[in-house]
Amino acid sequence: MTAARLPKREVLLLRGGTVITMDRQRSVVRADVLVVDGRIDKVAKSLRPPKGARVIECEGRAVMPGLIQSHVHLCQVLFRNQADGLELLDWLSQRIWPFEAAHDERSLGHSARLGIAELLLGGTTGIVDMATVRHTGAVMQAALDSGIRYTGGKCLMDQGFEGLREDTRAALKETEALGKEWHGQDDGRIRYALCPRFVLSCTKPLWNEVRSLSEKNGWTVHTHASENRAEVAAVRKAVGDDNIAWFHRIGLTGERLVLAHCVHLSEREEEILSATATTVVHCPGANLKLASGLSPVPRLLQKGAHLALGGDGAPCNNTLDAFHEMRLAATLHLPAFGPRALPASEVLAMATRNGARALGIEDQVGSIEAGKRADLAVLELTRPHFVPLGPDLHATIVYCAKSSDVTDTIVDGRHLVRGQKLVSLDAASLAENASAELARLTKRL
Amino acid sequence: MTAARLPKREVLLLRGGTVITMDRQRSVVRADVLVVDGRIDKVAKSLRPPKGARVIECEGRAVMPGLIQSHVHLCQVLFRNQADGLELLDWLSQRIWPFEAAHDERSLGHSARLGIAELLLGGTTGIVDMATVRHTGAVMQAALDSGIRYTGGKCLMDQGFEGLREDTRAALKETEALGKEWHGQDDGRIRYALCPRFVLSCTKPLWNEVRSLSEKNGWTVHTHASENRAEVAAVRKAVGDDNIAWFHRIGLTGERLVLAHCVHLSEREEEILSATATTVVHCPGANLKLASGLSPVPRLLQKGAHLALGGDGAPCNNTLDAFHEMRLAATLHLPAFGPRALPASEVLAMATRNGARALGIEDQVGSIEAGKRADLAVLELTRPHFVPLGPDLHATIVYCAKSSDVTDTIVDGRHLVRGQKLVSLDAASLAENASAELARLTKRL
Repeated sequence: MTAARLPKREVLLLRGGTVITMDRQRSVVRADVLVVDGRIDKVAKSLRPPKGARVIECEGRAVMPGLIQSHVHLCQVLFRNQADGLELLDWLSQRIWPFEAAHDERSLGHSARLGIAELLLGGTTGIVDMATVRHTGAVMQAALDSGIRYTGGKCLMDQGFEGLREDTRAALKETEALGKEWHGQDDGRIRYALCPRFVLSCTKPLWNEVRSLSEKNGWTVHTHASENRAEVAAVRKAVGDDNIAWFHRIGLTGERLVLAHCVHLSEREEEILSATATTVVHCPGANLKLASGLSPVPRLLQKGAHLALGGDGAPCNNTLDAFHEMRLAATLHLPAFGPRALPASEVLAMATRNGARALGIEDQVGSIEAGKRADLAVLELTRPHFVPLGPDLHATIVYCAKSSDVTDTIVDGRHLVRGQKLVSLDAASLAENASAELARLTKRL
Repeated sequence: MTAARLPKREVLLLRGGTVITMDRQRSVVRADVLVVDGRIDKVAKSLRPPKGARVIECEGRAVMPGLIQSHVHLCQVLFRNQADGLELLDWLSQRIWPFEAAHDERSLGHSARLGIAELLLGGTTGIVDMATVRHTGAVMQAALDSGIRYTGGKCLMDQGFEGLREDTRAALKETEALGKEWHGQDDGRIRYALCPRFVLSCTKPLWNEVRSLSEKNGWTVHTHASENRAEVAAVRKAVGDDNIAWFHRIGLTGERLVLAHCVHLSEREEEILSATATTVVHCPGANLKLASGLSPVPRLLQKGAHLALGGDGAPCNNTLDAFHEMRLAATLHLPAFGPRALPASEVLAMATRNGARALGIEDQVGSIEAGKRADLAVLELTRPHFVPLGPDLHATIVYCAKSSDVTDTIVDGRHLVRGQKLVSLDAASLAENASAELARLTKRL
């Protein structure tokens, strides 16, 4: 087992780097960044390190807001490489749901920690996560112990697949209790989200109660919508309307709703998403691998929709790599929409500022500005594949950077990755034992 | 300047790894690989290291054939990040051609070495390269000195852009002289290719002479075709036929022809490519970034066409990363062709066995088999983003691996990357001086 060793918050001085602020003006400045008590204290030139401060030398490096993946499944990381060559509904029913149903606390915790190790090493500091139906506490605990910023919760399913289906009342009771237990822990780093899986897994009474619980507690609602053509057809048959149109009709759309995918949309649904400020989480890697299709991202942006980015599940991608998703998002839509349809700066915003909104805390993270929480990634810029750097550093990062260029990751002022080494988790041991953990789980299938 | 330090060939024992042979059966075996005199001597279990052998411990690693990118432009690496947001014809005329015209020997050599550094660090051992019109020797010399396996040559342009256009006779005379000088150097590691840029840059007499020179000398012909809709329309207007159909009519198609892109094809052209065993080099990253479109790769494969893979130019991609291209190729076509349309093993073949054919030496490299040249990449498999490993290791590599997972690269028995450090080039200095080199070039614009 892997003992968590969450480091204390320190006074940190990130010195001499190029700061990709992602503030409202998206300014890029040569400056030092001082972190005190978990917050960004100052962004200015030539800061003197306070006594006892740890100095991180950032010469030749970019200091950027920690990346936010607004749709992942930590519970599925242990199923990486085990479910290739399938479309969504087969992938779920033949592989993922049986796997999820076979999780116990131990395997689920392992899966979550393995995923968090990958995420932190690759500069992702915050996630919106859908756990599985049972043992949700194991995922929340892994998030708490590892230091990552987390918004997520128990997956709700009260119809469909027998191995995961629950009684509606019981599911709602458990999710409310989990929310009361976990929401706000560690000074707000952990936030609870209501996570009905998708329309085909949930009854109408469940959706109505989710809406009420969200209103009552201010909790985010995180679900999937309109990912795959067969799913879209089945949803239409089930509820007599298009997926997002139906969400709108039952009063679910709005700023607290975070919808993964939104690949197949009617024109009216595109308008609804934009008008209601619902977050759409683009998951290009997963949409390709599951043969789902391409979300009309440039058109959604043009209509004013709020777009975020996510790696989705390891078994449908197969990595949780924000840099891979950014590069895909920035280039995938150009053949259909033209070479300037999705500026790199917009894509970087999807993975930072907009992700902060999906987490429910846009005033707290997502940019490097004094007063915000210190969620940061430091990126080596001097490797051959980066140079010469371009006039637009956002573009250089989006088109050239790899997760392996991240040298340091800081969440809430805690220095979690130092010189490419993870300190809050034992990445090597988690990786080494993953196959054995999966084998134990598979025996329970 | 960066002095080349090409290491000697050594006796190498790669011990305890998982060998992705990419032989005819595509077998994957736990075995040691012994390299003697630049060739693979044995692939077998528990080999005893010969006296004086260097042992490379490969426990937890994959030993795979060195990756081959069958379409790159080393001359353009210095223009990385300098030409975003444009489609092909604008990108060429507004940015790339003026840049290429401003190269001198020094900047061109720098560009080539910087690109080769990136390629070798990322496990690419062989390339088919199109140089620029002038100073071709600087690129060939960089290839010779760095140890990479190279098939390429002078870019031929006898119409169009004034800054690069040459007299037909003079261009042909120079390319023939270069071919005679360079083809076969270092025991065949360097091979010459005739590189007419594309139909719009070359007159019919030039194409006819290229065909003759190729027949006479056995040299590869490497060119671009049917990348962009506007280009395809212009070609049709210029020669009165579709691009590949016209190549077929003038007798250019066949095993010695290596065609980059082939995005926009008529049904008849797809048949021609398959029937003539012409190599089609799929460049998915560049095709997305230049908004060109998607080559119908699964259909071409089904028709029996010969597909290879390439990163193209740094300013249209922006990296020369075989792992990025493999993952793109493996997933990009699934929404249109279905989730099993392009098995990972086929994609890995495109970047290994099929690339060897594009290089003109399929009997020599592209797989790990006794008697073949030792072009190898060693890949760390124990990092969090890989695990648990799947039942199909080809898929695990194609969907999860990054260029930064390469620990060792061997070309022709020379150990060029050792523990992620490049020995034949000074990568840090090349990267550090790239901007200054570009600034010198830009002054000449």
